[in-house]
Amino acid sequence: MNTVPDDIDTPEIMVDRDVLQRNVTRMAEAVRAKGLALRPHAKTHKIPEIAALQLEAGAVGLTVATIGEAEVFAEHGVADLFIAYPLWVGPRQAERLRALSERARVSVGTDSVEAAAAMGAALGDAAGRIEVLVEVDSGHHRSGVLPGRAAEVARAAAGAGLRVAGVFTFPGQSYAPGMPVEAAGQEQRALAEAAGALAGAGFDVTRVSGGSTPSALLTESGATTEVRPGVYVFGDAQQLELGRCEPEDIALTIAATVVSRHEGEGEVPRRIVIDAGSKVIGGDRPAWATGFGRLADHPEALITALSEHHATVVFPDGADLPALGERVRVIPNHVCVAVNLVDDVAVVSGGEVVGRWRVAARGRNK
Amino acid sequence: MNTVPDDIDTPEIMVDRDVLQRNVTRMAEAVRAKGLALRPHAKTHKIPEIAALQLEAGAVGLTVATIGEAEVFAEHGVADLFIAYPLWVGPRQAERLRALSERARVSVGTDSVEAAAAMGAALGDAAGRIEVLVEVDSGHHRSGVLPGRAAEVARAAAGAGLRVAGVFTFPGQSYAPGMPVEAAGQEQRALAEAAGALAGAGFDVTRVSGGSTPSALLTESGATTEVRPGVYVFGDAQQLELGRCEPEDIALTIAATVVSRHEGEGEVPRRIVIDAGSKVIGGDRPAWATGFGRLADHPEALITALSEHHATVVFPDGADLPALGERVRVIPNHVCVAVNLVDDVAVVSGGEVVGRWRVAARGRNK
Repeated sequence: MNTVPDDIDTPEIMVDRDVLQRNVTRMAEAVRAKGLALRPHAKTHKIPEIAALQLEAGAVGLTVATIGEAEVFAEHGVADLFIAYPLWVGPRQAERLRALSERARVSVGTDSVEAAAAMGAALGDAAGRIEVLVEVDSGHHRSGVLPGRAAEVARAAAGAGLRVAGVFTFPGQSYAPGMPVEAAGQEQRALAEAAGALAGAGFDVTRVSGGSTPSALLTESGATTEVRPGVYVFGDAQQLELGRCEPEDIALTIAATVVSRHEGEGEVPRRIVIDAGSKVIGGDRPAWATGFGRLADHPEALITALSEHHATVVFPDGADLPALGERVRVIPNHVCVAVNLVDDVAVVSGGEVVGRWRVAARGRNK
Repeated sequence: MNTVPDDIDTPEIMVDRDVLQRNVTRMAEAVRAKGLALRPHAKTHKIPEIAALQLEAGAVGLTVATIGEAEVFAEHGVADLFIAYPLWVGPRQAERLRALSERARVSVGTDSVEAAAAMGAALGDAAGRIEVLVEVDSGHHRSGVLPGRAAEVARAAAGAGLRVAGVFTFPGQSYAPGMPVEAAGQEQRALAEAAGALAGAGFDVTRVSGGSTPSALLTESGATTEVRPGVYVFGDAQQLELGRCEPEDIALTIAATVVSRHEGEGEVPRRIVIDAGSKVIGGDRPAWATGFGRLADHPEALITALSEHHATVVFPDGADLPALGERVRVIPNHVCVAVNLVDDVAVVSGGEVVGRWRVAARGRNK
């Protein structure tokens, strides 16, 4: 398991099928035990074969970020799709949503009176076929209205002919050290307040949707009815460093080769350079991260710099530098952006390549 | 020019053909005036139509980062390709280099005795068809040997049957405020020392290759014979903030729509959210940058956070927030990684879409 199969050329994204299946099953069981529905975010993997595993394990449907991602998964037979995004819908987007609603149950997000009105007008007769969840800001301060304004947006959506189903939020502030527990609390309070406001305004609130990977297992089934974790299928270096997964849970790594090696002298650092850079690892680096990803089999090493096709990996004085030509495995900081860089991934089991999966929704940004 | 054409759905990468042509011509003329050869780095655009413009303007050939990129441009008729990367060549890579050398003049990088020996052994009879340039570390401390060791690597390459043509370096330290002039000096000294060492060891040094976009126009034709700038074709927010290009030189922007808008209150920031995130802008953010890119028509705004499909844009108190549904243009921090995220780009001239170009070498990481 700790080696790169001989028939892989580097850099290459590898998915360990057995670890993946274990992650899928474990999250499904944990969420079921809490009495919540699981609607995993498919933007993480963009792969129909993985969506099928999630649905087999009991997911009620999928979450996606764009109409384009929804189209890909609908083509692959997914029957219930939530575009968890405050869409701005013009005529061309309305036509695509209308077509989508003929093959799947479709729900979308909205966070303003203006966007809800525009969407309803563009959809016309089809508006009643689209469910809307009002996006609430639970402390991440990205999109979403403050909970006290959720009812106003819901009334605009209903007035525009859309079916209001509930509220959702993304507690992005959970992606920081020490924050998962606090963020999960903020999330649940914001969702409860917004859901209560909608119920008070006469809406039948059937969906109250939350849950990032860091906060999903901390969510209690109070007001919340469903969670939308994404990263849990693969894990990544951020989740490792946040303590939300263990090294043995990492299902996706990037195979790379040592192309340059320097023992260092004076101010020149002791390092290797590998042939995986930001064009396959992704360039995300939160301020609290230790580097631009980690080496799976060299926890003592730090990826101190990333170019497009180079990662510079610095080793402490005591540790041997891997040899030139040696192959190593990189754990990306943010697995969602790594997968989005490649057309397909190698599927590995027991140290052998057993197949390839196409990243069918790669690049579907609109 | 400052508006997004109506027939574009967002997010979408747009290339202004007229600005691009001006950038291509200007760099070609400036480099020619210095008596240097121009070998632009095609990893920036990965687009055969742009490579053709560069060659028409007088480029002697192209630089690429991977064998896969070289294969794409060779298929499109480019006859002289430099893979400016310290390749680790096994049997499969050797087979591809051999095939490539039958349709183009091919040169590659190497930075160690071990890699040069491995490459020569894997190439066998074909070794003499491949030119090698020894990579030198001129202060970036990524790949490359220190100049004093270049001759040792050159001897190993020659001993392995490869044709040694000279030396190259990448002054990556030039991508920081105040550094272009200093980096260009370090680059020229390192190249001169390494080229001198090779000549002293009896090699016929025909190529001495340097030059990032920040340092290319600062390079003097002393020891240096060619430069390899890449970003200059498009410009980007990094080059703007480094003072290496002007706003009117920006040839590539990302069209985006305002999907969420918040006047702010208390600790909640005054902001808009647009539908272009790291999956189309790219996540690069050097520590010295003001944010995750800039808005082309709102220089006062800062992109303070980037998710996969959201950019959070904060405006100062005095400035009006763009309206919901309004379309804006984003200048990415690092244009090379933005282009690599999409399969094609919209070509714009005079405010109209005049065509589409395929990013033919996208994702060719190996």
